[in-house]
Amino acid sequence: MPEQDVAAVKTALKSQRIETPSWAYGNSGTRFKVFAQAGVPRTVREKLDDAARVQRHTGVAPVVALHIPWDRAGADDDFTALASYAADKGLRLGAVNANVFQEDAYKLGSVAHPDPAVRRKALDHLMECVDIMDATGSRDLKLWFADGTNYPGQDDIRARQDRLAEALSAVYERLSEKQRLVLEYKLFEPAFYSTDVPDWGTSYAHCLKLGPKARVCVDTGHHAPGTNIEFIVAFLLREGKLGAFDFNSRFYADDDLMAGAADPFQLFRIMYEVRAGGGLEGTAEERAAEGEGPGVAFMLDQCHNIEPKVPAIIRSVMNVQEATAKALLVDREALAAAQRAGDVLTANGVLMDAFNTDVRPLLADVREELGADRDPMAAYAASGWAEAIVRERVGGEQAGWGA
Amino acid sequence: MPEQDVAAVKTALKSQRIETPSWAYGNSGTRFKVFAQAGVPRTVREKLDDAARVQRHTGVAPVVALHIPWDRAGADDDFTALASYAADKGLRLGAVNANVFQEDAYKLGSVAHPDPAVRRKALDHLMECVDIMDATGSRDLKLWFADGTNYPGQDDIRARQDRLAEALSAVYERLSEKQRLVLEYKLFEPAFYSTDVPDWGTSYAHCLKLGPKARVCVDTGHHAPGTNIEFIVAFLLREGKLGAFDFNSRFYADDDLMAGAADPFQLFRIMYEVRAGGGLEGTAEERAAEGEGPGVAFMLDQCHNIEPKVPAIIRSVMNVQEATAKALLVDREALAAAQRAGDVLTANGVLMDAFNTDVRPLLADVREELGADRDPMAAYAASGWAEAIVRERVGGEQAGWGA
Amino acid sequence: MPEQDVAAVKTALKSQRIETPSWAYGNSGTRFKVFAQAGVPRTVREKLDDAARVQRHTGVAPVVALHIPWDRAGADDDFTALASYAADKGLRLGAVNANVFQEDAYKLGSVAHPDPAVRRKALDHLMECVDIMDATGSRDLKLWFADGTNYPGQDDIRARQDRLAEALSAVYERLSEKQRLVLEYKLFEPAFYSTDVPDWGTSYAHCLKLGPKARVCVDTGHHAPGTNIEFIVAFLLREGKLGAFDFNSRFYADDDLMAGAADPFQLFRIMYEVRAGGGLEGTAEERAAEGEGPGVAFMLDQCHNIEPKVPAIIRSVMNVQEATAKALLVDREALAAAQRAGDVLTANGVLMDAFNTDVRPLLADVREELGADRDPMAAYAASGWAEAIVRERVGGEQAGWGA
Amino acid sequence: MPEQDVAAVKTALKSQRIETPSWAYGNSGTRFKVFAQAGVPRTVREKLDDAARVQRHTGVAPVVALHIPWDRAGADDDFTALASYAADKGLRLGAVNANVFQEDAYKLGSVAHPDPAVRRKALDHLMECVDIMDATGSRDLKLWFADGTNYPGQDDIRARQDRLAEALSAVYERLSEKQRLVLEYKLFEPAFYSTDVPDWGTSYAHCLKLGPKARVCVDTGHHAPGTNIEFIVAFLLREGKLGAFDFNSRFYADDDLMAGAADPFQLFRIMYEVRAGGGLEGTAEERAAEGEGPGVAFMLDQCHNIEPKVPAIIRSVMNVQEATAKALLVDREALAAAQRAGDVLTANGVLMDAFNTDVRPLLADVREELGADRDPMAAYAASGWAEAIVRERVGGEQAGWGA
Repeated sequence: MPEQDVAAVKTALKSQRIETPSWAYGNSGTRFKVFAQAGVPRTVREKLDDAARVQRHTGVAPVVALHIPWDRAGADDDFTALASYAADKGLRLGAVNANVFQEDAYKLGSVAHPDPAVRRKALDHLMECVDIMDATGSRDLKLWFADGTNYPGQDDIRARQDRLAEALSAVYERLSEKQRLVLEYKLFEPAFYSTDVPDWGTSYAHCLKLGPKARVCVDTGHHAPGTNIEFIVAFLLREGKLGAFDFNSRFYADDDLMAGAADPFQLFRIMYEVRAGGGLEGTAEERAAEGEGPGVAFMLDQCHNIEPKVPAIIRSVMNVQEATAKALLVDREALAAAQRAGDVLTANGVLMDAFNTDVRPLLADVREELGADRDPMAAYAASGWAEAIVRERVGGEQAGWGA
Repeated sequence: MPEQDVAAVKTALKSQRIETPSWAYGNSGTRFKVFAQAGVPRTVREKLDDAARVQRHTGVAPVVALHIPWDRAGADDDFTALASYAADKGLRLGAVNANVFQEDAYKLGSVAHPDPAVRRKALDHLMECVDIMDATGSRDLKLWFADGTNYPGQDDIRARQDRLAEALSAVYERLSEKQRLVLEYKLFEPAFYSTDVPDWGTSYAHCLKLGPKARVCVDTGHHAPGTNIEFIVAFLLREGKLGAFDFNSRFYADDDLMAGAADPFQLFRIMYEVRAGGGLEGTAEERAAEGEGPGVAFMLDQCHNIEPKVPAIIRSVMNVQEATAKALLVDREALAAAQRAGDVLTANGVLMDAFNTDVRPLLADVREELGADRDPMAAYAASGWAEAIVRERVGGEQAGWGA
Repeated sequence: MPEQDVAAVKTALKSQRIETPSWAYGNSGTRFKVFAQAGVPRTVREKLDDAARVQRHTGVAPVVALHIPWDRAGADDDFTALASYAADKGLRLGAVNANVFQEDAYKLGSVAHPDPAVRRKALDHLMECVDIMDATGSRDLKLWFADGTNYPGQDDIRARQDRLAEALSAVYERLSEKQRLVLEYKLFEPAFYSTDVPDWGTSYAHCLKLGPKARVCVDTGHHAPGTNIEFIVAFLLREGKLGAFDFNSRFYADDDLMAGAADPFQLFRIMYEVRAGGGLEGTAEERAAEGEGPGVAFMLDQCHNIEPKVPAIIRSVMNVQEATAKALLVDREALAAAQRAGDVLTANGVLMDAFNTDVRPLLADVREELGADRDPMAAYAASGWAEAIVRERVGGEQAGWGA
Repeated sequence: MPEQDVAAVKTALKSQRIETPSWAYGNSGTRFKVFAQAGVPRTVREKLDDAARVQRHTGVAPVVALHIPWDRAGADDDFTALASYAADKGLRLGAVNANVFQEDAYKLGSVAHPDPAVRRKALDHLMECVDIMDATGSRDLKLWFADGTNYPGQDDIRARQDRLAEALSAVYERLSEKQRLVLEYKLFEPAFYSTDVPDWGTSYAHCLKLGPKARVCVDTGHHAPGTNIEFIVAFLLREGKLGAFDFNSRFYADDDLMAGAADPFQLFRIMYEVRAGGGLEGTAEERAAEGEGPGVAFMLDQCHNIEPKVPAIIRSVMNVQEATAKALLVDREALAAAQRAGDVLTANGVLMDAFNTDVRPLLADVREELGADRDPMAAYAASGWAEAIVRERVGGEQAGWGA
C-alpha cells in the first residue's frame, strides 16, 4: 500500500472513538447465576477509574456511557460533578441509557403498559435522563424498551404501538437542538412472544416520524438468526438514520460476548459498510458534535460474565479496531472495478485480501503514536491494576444490574 | 355465541376472497428435482379451468393471480380475451406478478444489476406488466425481486438500493390511480449473502417514499426464524401499508407448503391481527375496488411439489378460512377487558378459546349458503375432475416455472 | 367415533400422569429482573400445598419433581418426612433434579470443569441426590449440566467430554436397579459458545454407553430453530432411550412458557409420536414402576415470570392433556392406509382431523369421572386459594432459584 | 515460531488432500433458475480435465469424488478405464456418491419409501455404486438421502427408520474390508417437514449399529442455525466415527457457497478440532488407506451458481488450506496451560493469535515446494484454460444435476 494511504488509514484509526459502557465494568450474569468478581466497582466513579485504564492502554476509548439509575448513587447524583471527575481522568461522559425495566411496576411493560400510571412513571424517568444529559453534556439518549408480551392475546399489539409512539414523541420534544434520541431494537428477551420494538424496521419507522434527531441503534446481538446486519447498516446510513452501534457478539441469542469474538468476519463487513457509508469520515470532534449530522456512535454493550471485566473491554476495543483497520484497507477502486465488471470472484477476493491481512502491527504503531501501548493486553496485565482493585475495593456493594 | 354474532361472522366469512396463484396449478419442485404430475395445465386457460373448480367447491376463491411470462403464451397474449375467459368461468384476474429472475441476463440481478442495460430490460418487463394490468383490470402489480448477492463484496449493497429505488419510482409513476404496487420482501433465496429487499422494513421504507399506491406484501414464508409475523401485520395495518399476503407455510426456509399446514396457530394469530386492524371489514367489492384504501389481498403462494395441485389448493383455501373463522370468533370485549386488567392468563385464555373451537361445521354452513360444497375435499374427489384432466391433458408442455 | 373407542381414549387420558416441578411454584425471571409475586411458597411444603391444588382441580398431576438444593431447607432435609407429607396431600415425589450451576465454584463448569476439585464437588452433589432418591422413593435422577464455554479456545471440547463421561459413569454405578438417570440436553444458555450436552445425539451417545438405566430427557424448549422435535421423540422411543419430557414452550430460545402456549400443533405432533411409540400404553402404576421399561415421564419445566404460578401450571397441565387427547383421537388405521397408498393429502388430513377436534368437552368428562373439576381454571379461581396464600404467606423468603 | 515447528506445519499442509466433487465443475442453480455457463464439462472426463487444473495450481487436490449417475455416460461406464484416465492426469477417483433422489419413483422417498418396490430399486442403485467402487478403487461410499416428508402425517416417521436401517445394513454387508460407508445428514431440503437423517445423532446411531466401516459425514451447510459444528467434529473424532467432511459455506440454509466464504473463523475452529482429534496426523497415503482407521476425507461439496467453476474451486481449496494452516499454528501448549488455569481471556487469545495470522505467505511457500503455484488464482487466470474450454467445449450437453 502506498505510504500516503497508510497514513490516511492511521489517521482514521486514531480518530475513532469507542465508547465503553459503565455497566460492563460491573457484574453481570445469566438468569441462572451472577458470578461475582472481586474488585468490581462499587460506584460510578470506580467505573470511570476502570474506564480510564482502558483509555490509557488503547488510546481510543475516552467516552463512557452511563446507565440510569445504576450510575446514580449518593453523591453521584450530581452529574455535573461526575462530568468533571471524568474530565480529570481524561474521559468524557457519553450516551445516557434509560432503564424502565427493573422496577416491579414494569412487569407488563413501561411506556407501552396498559396502565397510564405506569406509562407516566416511565416517561418521567426518560425525562429525567434528558435532565442528566443537560448536566453531563451528553449528546445521545439511548432508549431500549424491554416492553412486550409473553403470551398471544396478553395485550393489544397495535395499542402498544400507539402508547409507545406517544411516549417517544414526548421525549423527542424535550430534547435540545444538539441532543439526539437513539432507539434500540431487539428481537426478543425479556419478552418472549412479542416485543414492541423488535427490529430495525420498527425503530426506523418511529424515528422517521419523530424527526431528524431520532436515530436507530444497531445492537449487533439483537437480530434473528440469518439476519444480514451489514445490510441494515448500509440501509440506515443511506437514509441518514444510523445513530449508534451497541457492539457485542453472539452465537445464539443476545449473548453479549466481547465484540468480534464470535464472528470477526461479520464485524469487518459491518465496519466496511460504515466506511462505505461515510461513517468513518471527519475528525472525532466533528462526529461527536453532530446533532443532525451523520455521526455514528461506536459503543460497546457487553456482559463479561466469566472473564475479568477490564481486560475483556480492552480486548473488545481492540477487536473493533482490527475490524475497522481491515475495513479501511479494502481497495475500494479495485473493488468497484470488479463489481462493475460483474467479476464475482475478484470482487470477493478484494474484500478477503483486506480481511486476511494481519493488522496487528499497524495498530500497534497507531497506539504508539497515540501515546498508548503497542500491546494493551500485556500492558494492562503488567500494570498491577487488576491486583490493586481486588485489594482496594473491599466492602460495599457493586453498583449495577447484576447485583 | 348470540345468533346475531354468528350471522355477522358468517357474513364476514362469505365476503372473504382468497386469490389463488396460477403457478400453483402447475408443476414445481426443489433444486434437486421437479416431480412432474399428470394432468397439470399446459396453458393459462387450463389453469383457469382448475381454478374454477376450486371456486366451485369453496365459493370464496374467484380471483386468480397471473405470473408473466409464465401466463403468456400464444393466443393468451390477448389479456383482454383472457379476462373474458375468466369471467365466463366465474373468475376474475387478480394481481399481476412480474418475473425478472429467470432469464440469463439476470444472473447478477435485475433492477439492481450493476449493468444499466440489464436494469433497462427488467424495467421494460415491469412496464409491460402494467400494460397487462390495464388489459385485465387488475389492481395490483406484485413485485418480488430475486436480486441480491452470493458473496461479500460481490456488489455494492448501497448502490443496489439506489438502482432499486430508481426502478420502483419509474414503475410507480406508470400506475393509474386505481392501480397499486405491492412489494414483496424475502430473507434469502435465491441470493445467499445479501438480498436487496430482505425484510419488511426495507419494503416499507421504499413504499413510504413511493407514495400511497405502494404497499408491502407479506409472504408468510419469507422471514428469519423466530420472526413474529403477526406483529408485522399489525404494524403495517396501523401504518396503512399492508397491501397483500402471500400465504403458505414453512417449517424451515421458504418451503411454500400449504397455508396453515405447518403452524395453524400462527395463521390464526395473523388473521386475528388482520381483523383487529380492520382488514376484514366491508364487502368484497369494496375491498377489491380500493386503490388507496385499506384493501388487503389474501393470496396464496404455494408450491405443491409432491401432492396433487387442485385439492392442495382447496385445502389451503379451507385452512385460511378456518383461521379467519377462529379470528372472527375471538371475544374482543372480553379480551380487551382482560388486557386492560393486566390479567395475562385470562387474556390468553380468551384467544385460545377461539382457536380451540372446531369451526368446521360453521364453515360447512357458510359454504352451503354460498352454493358451494359443505365438504370441498370430498366433493372434489367425487367430481371426477382429477381423473378427467389426466385423461384429457395429454401432450404439450406444462406452462410454468418448474418445467 | 365408536363408543368403545371413546372409552379407551378416556382410559388412557385418566392414566396419564403429568409431573409438576416444585420450582415452577416459586418466583423466576430473566437476567434483567425477577418480578416477585405475593403468596409464593417459602418452603418446599408450601410448594407441595400448591401442587395439591393443581392435582385437586385436574386429577392427573399427583407427582412433584424436586430440585436440590432449592427444596432442601431446615427440617425439609428429612426427605422421608417430606415424602410422607406429600402422600398426605395425595401427592408423590418425582424426579430429583440436581443443581450444579449456582455456586461460585461452577463459574467454568461442574462435572466438566478443568479443576478436579470442582468436579469432585459436583459429583458429591449428584451422589447426594441419589441418596435423596433413596429416601423419597423417586425413580429418576434428572441431570442438566450448564457446563460449557463462552469463548472459542476457553477449554478443550474433547477433554470436557472425557470428564463428563467419567462423572456420569460414577453416578450410574451408584443407582439402584429401580432407579434411572435421565440426561437433559440444551442447545445453549447459560454457556454461549459451546455446551457440553448440546443436543439429543450427545445425550443419547452417553446414555448408550452408560447402560439401560440411562435415558434421554427431551426439554421441548432446548432445540435449535427448525428442529423437528417429534422426530427425536420417535427416534428415541424406537431405541428405547426416551426417559422423560420437560414440557414448556418457546418462540425463540428457552423461553420456558406454558406448555402448548406457543405451538399447540407441535405439542400434538409430539404426543402423537409418543402414542405411536407405545408411550401411552399401560397403567400409570406400570409406567411409574418401570426401571428399564419404556416408561416416559411427562414433566413440566416452566417459568411463570409474569403470570400467577398455580393457574399457569393448571393451564399447562390442561394443554398437555388436550394435545394427548387429540393424539389419541387420530384414526391410526385410516392414517396407515393413506400412508401406504402414498396419499399425502389424505394422510395429512387424517392427522389434522384429530387436531381440529375440540376435545375440551371430552376432557371435562374425563376430569369429572376422575373426581376433579370439569373446568379447572374456573374452579381454581373460585376456590379462594390465590387470595388465601397471599394473605397467609407473609414474611420469610421464597425458596427457589429466582430469589 | 521455531524453525522446526514451521517445517512440521509445512509437512502437514503438504500432506493434506482436498477432494473436489465432479459435480461442482458442472452447472447448478436454485429452484428458480440454473444459469448455464459456457465451457462447462459435457463428460466426466472433461470434469477430470478441469480437476487436473485445480490440482496443478494448488498441489493438494488430486482426488475427485464421483456422482452416479451424473458421471456415468456412454463410454464412461467403464470405471476402470476412467480410473486410468484420472491416473494419467495425476488424479485419483475418490468417494462414490449415490443418487436416489432424481427419478420420478423417488417422489416420496427412496430407501425409506413406503413401497417396497421403490426401496428395492434404490438399494439396487446403492449396490451398483459399490460395484463402481470396486472398479475405481474408491474407499468411500457416500450416502445422502433426500428422504423425508413434507407434511405431518404423510408417512410414519418410525417405520421410515426401520426401512432405512434395513437398506443401510444390506449395503454395509456388501462392502469389502477396505471400503467404508459414509452417511451424510441434513436438517431439511428437499423434504420440508421431516427428514429421515436430519442430524448427526441420527447418522451416528445408524453407523454405530452398522459397525466400524460406517462413519458420519459432516456437511458444513447442513445444520440448524446456531449449531456448533466443531463440537460435533470433536465428538465424532472422539468416538472414532468421523468419516468425511463436505465443505461448503452458508449464511442461511444449505447455500453451498465456497468453503470459508461465509464464516472463515468457523472453518478455522473446525480444522482446529480436526487437528486436536488427530485428524491431520500421518501421511496422505496412510490416511487414504485407512479402512477402519481414523482417516477423515476432506471433500468439497459446493454449487457455483453464479461464479466460474474452476477458479471457485481453487479458491475453496485455498480457503480450506488457510483454515488448516491457522489451526496448525495454534500454540497448543500455551492453550492447554491457559485452559488448565481457567484463564478465559488468555486461552481465547492464544486461539485468536493463530487465526489473526496472515498465512498466505506460508502457503505460497508450501505450494512452491510442492511444485504448484504460489498464487493459484493468478496462475489459473494467466493459464488461458478458462478461455480454452469456452472455445472448445461447444455443443453437447453438460453432464450433471443442474442441466
